[in-house]
Amino acid sequence: MIIVLKPEATEVEAKEILAQIESVNLKPLYMPGTERIVLGALGDERILNNLNIGAHPMVENVKPILSTYKQVSRELQSHDTQVQFGDVTIGGGSFAIIAGPCAVENREQIFKSAELVKKYGAVGLRGGAFKPRTSPYSFQGLEEEGLQLLQEASKEYGLPCVTEIIDPAHVEMLEQYVDAFQIGARNMQNFKLLKAVGQSHKPAILKRGMSATIEELLLAAEYIYNEGNQNVIICERGIRTFEKATRNTLDLNAVAYIKTKSHLPVIVDPSHGTGIRELVGPMAKAAVACGADGVIVEAHYNPQVALSDGAQSLDEAHFAKLMNEIKPFIQAAGKVVA
Amino acid sequence: MIIVLKPEATEVEAKEILAQIESVNLKPLYMPGTERIVLGALGDERILNNLNIGAHPMVENVKPILSTYKQVSRELQSHDTQVQFGDVTIGGGSFAIIAGPCAVENREQIFKSAELVKKYGAVGLRGGAFKPRTSPYSFQGLEEEGLQLLQEASKEYGLPCVTEIIDPAHVEMLEQYVDAFQIGARNMQNFKLLKAVGQSHKPAILKRGMSATIEELLLAAEYIYNEGNQNVIICERGIRTFEKATRNTLDLNAVAYIKTKSHLPVIVDPSHGTGIRELVGPMAKAAVACGADGVIVEAHYNPQVALSDGAQSLDEAHFAKLMNEIKPFIQAAGKVVA
Amino acid sequence: MIIVLKPEATEVEAKEILAQIESVNLKPLYMPGTERIVLGALGDERILNNLNIGAHPMVENVKPILSTYKQVSRELQSHDTQVQFGDVTIGGGSFAIIAGPCAVENREQIFKSAELVKKYGAVGLRGGAFKPRTSPYSFQGLEEEGLQLLQEASKEYGLPCVTEIIDPAHVEMLEQYVDAFQIGARNMQNFKLLKAVGQSHKPAILKRGMSATIEELLLAAEYIYNEGNQNVIICERGIRTFEKATRNTLDLNAVAYIKTKSHLPVIVDPSHGTGIRELVGPMAKAAVACGADGVIVEAHYNPQVALSDGAQSLDEAHFAKLMNEIKPFIQAAGKVVA
Amino acid sequence: MIIVLKPEATEVEAKEILAQIESVNLKPLYMPGTERIVLGALGDERILNNLNIGAHPMVENVKPILSTYKQVSRELQSHDTQVQFGDVTIGGGSFAIIAGPCAVENREQIFKSAELVKKYGAVGLRGGAFKPRTSPYSFQGLEEEGLQLLQEASKEYGLPCVTEIIDPAHVEMLEQYVDAFQIGARNMQNFKLLKAVGQSHKPAILKRGMSATIEELLLAAEYIYNEGNQNVIICERGIRTFEKATRNTLDLNAVAYIKTKSHLPVIVDPSHGTGIRELVGPMAKAAVACGADGVIVEAHYNPQVALSDGAQSLDEAHFAKLMNEIKPFIQAAGKVVA
Repeated sequence: MIIVLKPEATEVEAKEILAQIESVNLKPLYMPGTERIVLGALGDERILNNLNIGAHPMVENVKPILSTYKQVSRELQSHDTQVQFGDVTIGGGSFAIIAGPCAVENREQIFKSAELVKKYGAVGLRGGAFKPRTSPYSFQGLEEEGLQLLQEASKEYGLPCVTEIIDPAHVEMLEQYVDAFQIGARNMQNFKLLKAVGQSHKPAILKRGMSATIEELLLAAEYIYNEGNQNVIICERGIRTFEKATRNTLDLNAVAYIKTKSHLPVIVDPSHGTGIRELVGPMAKAAVACGADGVIVEAHYNPQVALSDGAQSLDEAHFAKLMNEIKPFIQAAGKVVA
Repeated sequence: MIIVLKPEATEVEAKEILAQIESVNLKPLYMPGTERIVLGALGDERILNNLNIGAHPMVENVKPILSTYKQVSRELQSHDTQVQFGDVTIGGGSFAIIAGPCAVENREQIFKSAELVKKYGAVGLRGGAFKPRTSPYSFQGLEEEGLQLLQEASKEYGLPCVTEIIDPAHVEMLEQYVDAFQIGARNMQNFKLLKAVGQSHKPAILKRGMSATIEELLLAAEYIYNEGNQNVIICERGIRTFEKATRNTLDLNAVAYIKTKSHLPVIVDPSHGTGIRELVGPMAKAAVACGADGVIVEAHYNPQVALSDGAQSLDEAHFAKLMNEIKPFIQAAGKVVA
Repeated sequence: MIIVLKPEATEVEAKEILAQIESVNLKPLYMPGTERIVLGALGDERILNNLNIGAHPMVENVKPILSTYKQVSRELQSHDTQVQFGDVTIGGGSFAIIAGPCAVENREQIFKSAELVKKYGAVGLRGGAFKPRTSPYSFQGLEEEGLQLLQEASKEYGLPCVTEIIDPAHVEMLEQYVDAFQIGARNMQNFKLLKAVGQSHKPAILKRGMSATIEELLLAAEYIYNEGNQNVIICERGIRTFEKATRNTLDLNAVAYIKTKSHLPVIVDPSHGTGIRELVGPMAKAAVACGADGVIVEAHYNPQVALSDGAQSLDEAHFAKLMNEIKPFIQAAGKVVA
Repeated sequence: MIIVLKPEATEVEAKEILAQIESVNLKPLYMPGTERIVLGALGDERILNNLNIGAHPMVENVKPILSTYKQVSRELQSHDTQVQFGDVTIGGGSFAIIAGPCAVENREQIFKSAELVKKYGAVGLRGGAFKPRTSPYSFQGLEEEGLQLLQEASKEYGLPCVTEIIDPAHVEMLEQYVDAFQIGARNMQNFKLLKAVGQSHKPAILKRGMSATIEELLLAAEYIYNEGNQNVIICERGIRTFEKATRNTLDLNAVAYIKTKSHLPVIVDPSHGTGIRELVGPMAKAAVACGADGVIVEAHYNPQVALSDGAQSLDEAHFAKLMNEIKPFIQAAGKVVA
């Protein structure tokens, strides 16, 4: 941590802060310059953070040197983590395609959609039962009934399934029905929820918050990891920017960047990342190319009757085209379909 | 709702969509242009939203005409709502100053801080007991013990108090200790939490999410309102932008804008909105000037020993200066101190 | 400047970089930590910048300590600069209101608009003759004819005038007609233009680019200053964010922040900052409250016939209301109308 | 264009606006709803834009239906434009790799860098002579001497070359030295420059402004096109967002989206788009996968001595790796190296 003092700060005040640093057994550094006194504190940034040095009236600003996530960092574990999702391995040399409708709507819909995605080679099934919706007047999901239908379709077609969790009190219920939890973008910093999922052993697909920095995303993963659940899969799903031609701005830089910093698998959601059916295919291929370990896409046997997110859901023709076109890219990346 | 069709869409396809609109008893409009067929649907956008017309393969895009929040809108209620926070009225012709530390840390700290803010004229006390923190390694709050201390200080100094709620299961517990709930920025779209607080009758200070649009913020308020709790106070606390010189970008436009669209009271948090002690005063004054009904600021009897947010907390000298300087602006705005 | 090395960097590589730092007579620092080697370089960041240390393959990242602007900084000059705009002084204890139409459209329009703003107390006149427009099909301004009309109205009503410059080759021509140059948001980093205006002695109102950081804005001011023109007025006019309810997000934090860092006067443009007529007044008052030295607003004798920006232009009733309501705030700020 | 009136608007006022629409020979529509009167105007949005209907006091908001760019739109020309850059064709079924240093620094540097990029298969050479730099104290380029050196290296290695233009007055000079103009991000809305380049016949690589929407980018292309120069190549180079782990957020969504909306070729700059050497390769591959027609990357024979942008420049090892790894992706995309 580097501590820049205000121009008017004196040596006495600098010593005061250095003493604080020493008090927690970190190494203090004193660097008087021509324009400012600069201080350094070397050691665990987690301890430094709690010192709250920025609050001193003579501190102009504080710059961290090291990241504050540790357990999910490649510095702690250099090899890629592989996460077991049902009988599918995510991470390492394979590329996983998880697909299914935004929400489970009824038996026919989830079965027909599962059949469709299985037919063209998806290895996992997605479907929401508890839907966080911007408006209180929108369809909020079938709740436990939806979970039952999802599980039945999952078994029928041999596809492990994932659904979103929105309440810490639901962990046990969901564990009975699904193979993985999804933590949605709006809940990425719902720390109660992260801790609850961290106490399970089922894998967690952690979606990036729409304005979360990469560091915050990895710290959210660290919350889950820190409770004992090491089966965390990071999911880039687009961030919110000024650009409104697409629903979100899919940040594939983040994928390439996280792969250098963390050992966790990273997947991409090009459906929410673009919000436009025609762009899902190109961006899924780009996800392969920049190093992602998989994609999660919305597919529906008949998007026109979907109760949510229809505009970004792939129908059979689009899903078939995606699966067909993505294969040479998976091969170019030196990977195999999971 | 305006529905723009793709250039290749035919009249037959247009009719298909018009039939959908009629099926829910809304008024359809057919507008064939030189370059596109454009359709209209007039009526309640909440119903239209659920039609999911955007999913039709021939729809290029869909533009809502009316906002989807209703109950919190000025169109439903033109006069200002006033919310009772303990014995303080928020909204209408008064201006409320709520102050206190980021987190309750111990008895001495919360009592001394409460004494300080009371001395200079604050009318409410803030203090966190359950702290949502970006890193799992940061101080997470004193939990129920913190609530007890907050309540004691609140009673001792005659200041109604507010604390953040982070778990839907905590509503009843918090109701015993505090006069208002705060819903934090990270939980603005934690819909489980919004609904839980909506079932209480205690006021809720709803903070804007760091990348929430104004419409999403008002829809979050609508979630609470829709459950029966009409005591909602909107709080602008800064949004996340590219600018990093300040912790957030305080969006005072939003305050002036919401005052034209909604009847709910709006307060401003210049502490999180700037992250810099020296800017809290100027931005609190700007909040008065643009029409806010109050401010909520972080103040600590000794910020240097604060366990969180020390750099933006006001000490006695800064708090005294703020209270002194803000008064002529409250007067200029034609208001009185609550 | 703080230089964080990659985990695999060796002492030999660190020494290589330290030698580079010494070669330009700056003070090098060696800080071996448990996880990383960290280096420091104390001295003029402008020299450090040109060393391009970030390019070394063993450098993980580089953090500047000091800002790179110098001449416009309060550290070089602690008292407020006052800029003479015609016979009006901007900066110091007065508050200046500059008003007028977006573009000069014809003689009647600029005269009637000048008469209107003079009547209610504006001290300067604005009006564009060369208009940078997003679409090539929009009205592009009257060019030199517009300048002539602007000058005539300016003289008739005793209001110094300002217009936007868009071409470095226009400096001499504009000098004949106007009392100040405006550098528009889109040209804030048109460095050719900044240098050309820097060689004039007429004041320059430098508008913040729509995605410019405060540091970039001050460096753009430094470009003008560095050429010899010290009559620079900073103008906050809103930044581009995800929020689309308003045209831009007016960043008043930036005003309060720049006032602490720079000695230059700062004015605010609430017309572009909001894009909505009804919000111009509240945000102009907020500009006073957070410490601005003036505002520049769009006013038109009949906005309905305006050729550009009509939706944010004040008509007579709105302008009169603004001038009436802003006065108590100017007084509360301890300032007088310029 | 859809025009939503305020709740208090009367039929008389609606008729007033409809008359305005008819006066320019566009088709007006009157849609009285339960909550609002909504009006429509069908026809060329360019004409509608100039009507300035938003300025009417009874208009709440205005929503365009069609985009305002026309000539660069796929609706005007459905097949892909191919642009001739020296003897290289950009667009259509080939993928072009343009590489070279950020700035031309001296003869040795530009020759060695050109030799390097040629050796591994680049088809074009980049190099700046006039550098727009954030700080006035940074290296500003060799100017005309740099152009001479660039041209010599270009001829020596048989690589057509491109350099940035920053002044409308430079068009003729640059035409003598280079095969294409680059319009930098900061100048994307320097309309004087766009018009000047539009009067040349040399190709123009138009970089997206760092906060420019896709529509603004296409309108900037329309400015060039409208002056008669149809050789426009769009370049996505990253936008400015809240994320600071990477220099910019490379918006590959924009590439896939523009390919559906415009017939112009689109290339990607992963060097500025990431700012980190290690991410250039992955993002160049992602550019291929999402449909780009080429990439432009910074490569330097010895980045450690580069005077600008060294941290994102590829050295020989990184450039060789990129060229080697990108080929299977070009093949997977069904394209050939240009």
